[in-house]
Amino acid sequence: MNACGCQFCKTKNFAFPLLQRCWNFLFEARIRERIIVCMKGFLSVFFLALHCLFAGEQVFKISEFGAFPGKGDASGAVAAALKAAAACGGPARISFEKGTYHFGCAGAHERYLFVSNNDSGLKAVVFLIEKADSITIDGGGASFVFHGNVSPFAAINSRNVKFENFSVDVSRPLVSEGKILEADSGGIVVEFPENFPYCVSRGTLQFRGVDGDPIALYDDFKSVYPYRFMLEFDPATGAFARMARDYPTLGELPAKQLDGRKVRIFYDGIKAKPGNIMAFWGGHRKYPSFTISNCSDLRFDNITIHSSLGMGIIAQNSGNVEISNCKVTPSKGRYISCAADATHFVNCSGKIILRNNLFERQLDDATNIHGIYEQIADISGGRVLTRLVHRQQRGFETFVSGGEVEFVKASSMICAGHAKVASLERVNSRYKVLEFDSPLPPSVKVGDCISRVRDYPQVVISGNIIRGNRARGILLNCRGKTLVENNIFSSPGTAILFEGDASFWFEQGGIRDCLIKNNTFDSCKYGVWGRGIIAVGSGIRADMDKSRYHKNLRIEGNTFRVFDKTPLLYAYCLDGLKWRGNKVEKSDSYPESCKDGRPFIIKYCDNIDIDTENSF
Amino acid sequence: MNACGCQFCKTKNFAFPLLQRCWNFLFEARIRERIIVCMKGFLSVFFLALHCLFAGEQVFKISEFGAFPGKGDASGAVAAALKAAAACGGPARISFEKGTYHFGCAGAHERYLFVSNNDSGLKAVVFLIEKADSITIDGGGASFVFHGNVSPFAAINSRNVKFENFSVDVSRPLVSEGKILEADSGGIVVEFPENFPYCVSRGTLQFRGVDGDPIALYDDFKSVYPYRFMLEFDPATGAFARMARDYPTLGELPAKQLDGRKVRIFYDGIKAKPGNIMAFWGGHRKYPSFTISNCSDLRFDNITIHSSLGMGIIAQNSGNVEISNCKVTPSKGRYISCAADATHFVNCSGKIILRNNLFERQLDDATNIHGIYEQIADISGGRVLTRLVHRQQRGFETFVSGGEVEFVKASSMICAGHAKVASLERVNSRYKVLEFDSPLPPSVKVGDCISRVRDYPQVVISGNIIRGNRARGILLNCRGKTLVENNIFSSPGTAILFEGDASFWFEQGGIRDCLIKNNTFDSCKYGVWGRGIIAVGSGIRADMDKSRYHKNLRIEGNTFRVFDKTPLLYAYCLDGLKWRGNKVEKSDSYPESCKDGRPFIIKYCDNIDIDTENSF
Repeated sequence: MNACGCQFCKTKNFAFPLLQRCWNFLFEARIRERIIVCMKGFLSVFFLALHCLFAGEQVFKISEFGAFPGKGDASGAVAAALKAAAACGGPARISFEKGTYHFGCAGAHERYLFVSNNDSGLKAVVFLIEKADSITIDGGGASFVFHGNVSPFAAINSRNVKFENFSVDVSRPLVSEGKILEADSGGIVVEFPENFPYCVSRGTLQFRGVDGDPIALYDDFKSVYPYRFMLEFDPATGAFARMARDYPTLGELPAKQLDGRKVRIFYDGIKAKPGNIMAFWGGHRKYPSFTISNCSDLRFDNITIHSSLGMGIIAQNSGNVEISNCKVTPSKGRYISCAADATHFVNCSGKIILRNNLFERQLDDATNIHGIYEQIADISGGRVLTRLVHRQQRGFETFVSGGEVEFVKASSMICAGHAKVASLERVNSRYKVLEFDSPLPPSVKVGDCISRVRDYPQVVISGNIIRGNRARGILLNCRGKTLVENNIFSSPGTAILFEGDASFWFEQGGIRDCLIKNNTFDSCKYGVWGRGIIAVGSGIRADMDKSRYHKNLRIEGNTFRVFDKTPLLYAYCLDGLKWRGNKVEKSDSYPESCKDGRPFIIKYCDNIDIDTENSF
Repeated sequence: MNACGCQFCKTKNFAFPLLQRCWNFLFEARIRERIIVCMKGFLSVFFLALHCLFAGEQVFKISEFGAFPGKGDASGAVAAALKAAAACGGPARISFEKGTYHFGCAGAHERYLFVSNNDSGLKAVVFLIEKADSITIDGGGASFVFHGNVSPFAAINSRNVKFENFSVDVSRPLVSEGKILEADSGGIVVEFPENFPYCVSRGTLQFRGVDGDPIALYDDFKSVYPYRFMLEFDPATGAFARMARDYPTLGELPAKQLDGRKVRIFYDGIKAKPGNIMAFWGGHRKYPSFTISNCSDLRFDNITIHSSLGMGIIAQNSGNVEISNCKVTPSKGRYISCAADATHFVNCSGKIILRNNLFERQLDDATNIHGIYEQIADISGGRVLTRLVHRQQRGFETFVSGGEVEFVKASSMICAGHAKVASLERVNSRYKVLEFDSPLPPSVKVGDCISRVRDYPQVVISGNIIRGNRARGILLNCRGKTLVENNIFSSPGTAILFEGDASFWFEQGGIRDCLIKNNTFDSCKYGVWGRGIIAVGSGIRADMDKSRYHKNLRIEGNTFRVFDKTPLLYAYCLDGLKWRGNKVEKSDSYPESCKDGRPFIIKYCDNIDIDTENSF
């Protein structure tokens, strides 16, 4: 029956002679060949899609895309695997095998990313997860090392994304480290290890990228690693040095090259201890390890972030994020982990869960959960020009058309009213023009602020160890129901800070229902940051008698191990506090410093209920 | 007859009772009102469009959009006027009145711009001309001052664009200037005028933005104006100092604040003359005055660029650009104009005309006309991975699908063959993947380069004065027919340089037909840049015996006013030179320096025909 010479007829017996005749009659042989090729392609894609949809999760081994541990730049393989996963249409898992993978920029796609509290810019993103649904990056215990100036992970407009079982490190951290050999009031002598390249040129100290790293170079700060501060780390305690403070450098410091890799740095009035580590930091926050933007249902499980060129995990305008069994901790030979906060959540919603993690040695808080205020730059008729003042909030999509907003007085933080956004025009990344469904509240003036009223997140922070980092433990500027329990804090500053202001950081806060329960605060406040082990503050500079920015805080069953009389609680403009069953124990971790402090400092608060029975 | 209560019936007599009855029958009163409102809107837009199309150029006075000389930030008015001009659909003229207009970022729209030979980035563009046809920006003799970090003008994907009758200045130039008061081998004492804010902090010198400029602040280098070089300017000659060279600073310089605004700057081995001006420059080229990308038929007439935060005019992938009767010259109280080249043309086509302009005191060439080479980073089967090596070429769209390319050996610059682009995939702003319609020429290896074969521009440079700038006069890396006539050059380096290389700048050149006629070269080569008053070079490092990168140069009827024996012509790997009727006269502008030079240095050239009759 092989009347036709086409591929189909050659390989199959045609069961229906009439159909075959029609087929032969309708199309000449060349066309028949083409139709068959097209059908084959279509059917294979169709069946692959069917398979993905009904056979559950599709697994894409990275080795099938040409990436193996220890070999070259695997960024192209990742891009190809992500493309295949997207084409599959169903749940997908990209899996690695144990070993070390290296990633540069040669295969990385770029996106211009506005990343709140980090630097915006065009980023080459190695793992670019965009408009995805149900994807898992399963490291299988692998170590991922990112070279040069690339963004390791970004999830954008996606949902059901999981990251599990891998570690993240960078070839050259933003923060440079050196061992202090000598110190006097005119400066310090520091020895820099080989893995922190530097030069002293024309009398000033500059830090450099790794020479000869073929996959490291990408953009214009490829070779210079700027710094704006020095901060002293104490290897003996595994934490920043007692009462260490940021020494601002503003730019590069005058310096003189000595023998070997030793440098004398000139800095009048510096205090430092030989044997400690000096960290040089603060130039950029360009490439957080994980950038999450406009996503929902994200999960991080068993991820270790050794170092990042920005924050560890930053999530913005996203909902339901869980971070469990993860670590932020430096890799061998380095003392500092992330260049900024370990985690950070901006204008998020749903549930935020941090459970059983270790956050240590990063250069800012373990977490900060807050909203955004935009400043009113001009009012003209019913049109309001708003400005994102802080440069690291540029490009933030604070509002939605039809959404509710809250007006707040800049100096008193008192809510001046609400309205709905009737129209929203984005002029550029700093300015927007808004119109509302109702007239502006009469007290609202240029300089006051607007935030979005949203589904404020419920927060659970449980079972974490937070220690050895710079600044605070956690910063809770969140209005949803918040539970902080069973954590161990050993923070150089305030362990738990409630803040919010409409005039400097423009971070919206104001707790409504927060329970701090069964935590251990072990020798906190050994550094210079904060006014109490737990502190309730805010940028209120007027009408303190009336303004009650934070409400309903309960602190129960916690243990405070203290080495001096630093306040247990500082409260400012708070309405509603219950203090019950908290124990205070003596610690000898640090020498006593604050000898005559009061345990509680309460200013401009209402409904304060402190019961210290059996506490001391 | 006002049977219906609608607006239309109230104001007009309805002439057709039957129609009116139908109208009333078909629609109820509320709907009739709406239909009439919609029709009115539609008709007014329709007649405006008709008017624009048939009434010729439509004039939009900026005053009608709320901008007046001397008042606030006019960027919003410009955006509104450009929007109205775009809506008009026909030729449009945006006109200003005489006076000073100020522009910041509040109303400026943003675009991410890759700008060759400048810094790429997200730019707030004040005059954003996009997809426009036939638009004129007529300044009417106005002065435009741009505050902070904004891009003054960008024309993208547009044609028939004219800029005429205005001057462009910035509130705070990138280049900082100070008067040298003292100089010794250990450093200099410089006094900075009030209009160049600076600070000496922790022992190093930093330059700053203007405090309290309400419309100046925009992005992250808002407050620090970085520098990487010092260069000495001589107010007596109105040019860079005799044999002045760039003193690299790499970053900030060690310094000490003295009384008033005097600063001692430490720099071993520096040579400088008290009374001269020291310029601190080289940090950025972020915001050229005019960025032209993918446009055709551009004209600049009677434009003065006093200062820019980058180049003056940069055109890329554009065709037919004429710059006539324009000036690049600093405003009062400043010695330096643009922070880089006055004009620059990359991968352009059609005609490039520079006629009757003054280009002075800018920090690089008056013009540079060249193509782009991309380096072959990898060859895998028929797929070639290309890389844009120079960071200021990132994002350049060098190739088009189906277009012809030329392969060139990196070290010899010899053409290795041609092919057509069969497929083109842009991985990111550095890397592309190309496939060709034919196998790669066998000699082509990783490290060699590819450029686009295009309609190379015809160039006319006529009647210009080029003086007092840093580096060269003009750099001609163009293959189209090129005429340089009736210009006056007084360049510190080579007045006319032919270059091109595939290993450092990656700028494609190679003249094919160039005539240099009736120009005056007045006391050129008083600085350190270049090997002759006219120089033909290129980055050829192998096969010099065979490689003839430049071809067919005629130099006729020019006058060379020389103060020493610096070579009139340096030629390297050139095929075809005619030297006819050029006069050499003695000048006493500078002391004699090169006393035993030869007038012609010819290396690895063919067909050299030099006639010096009546020359000396």
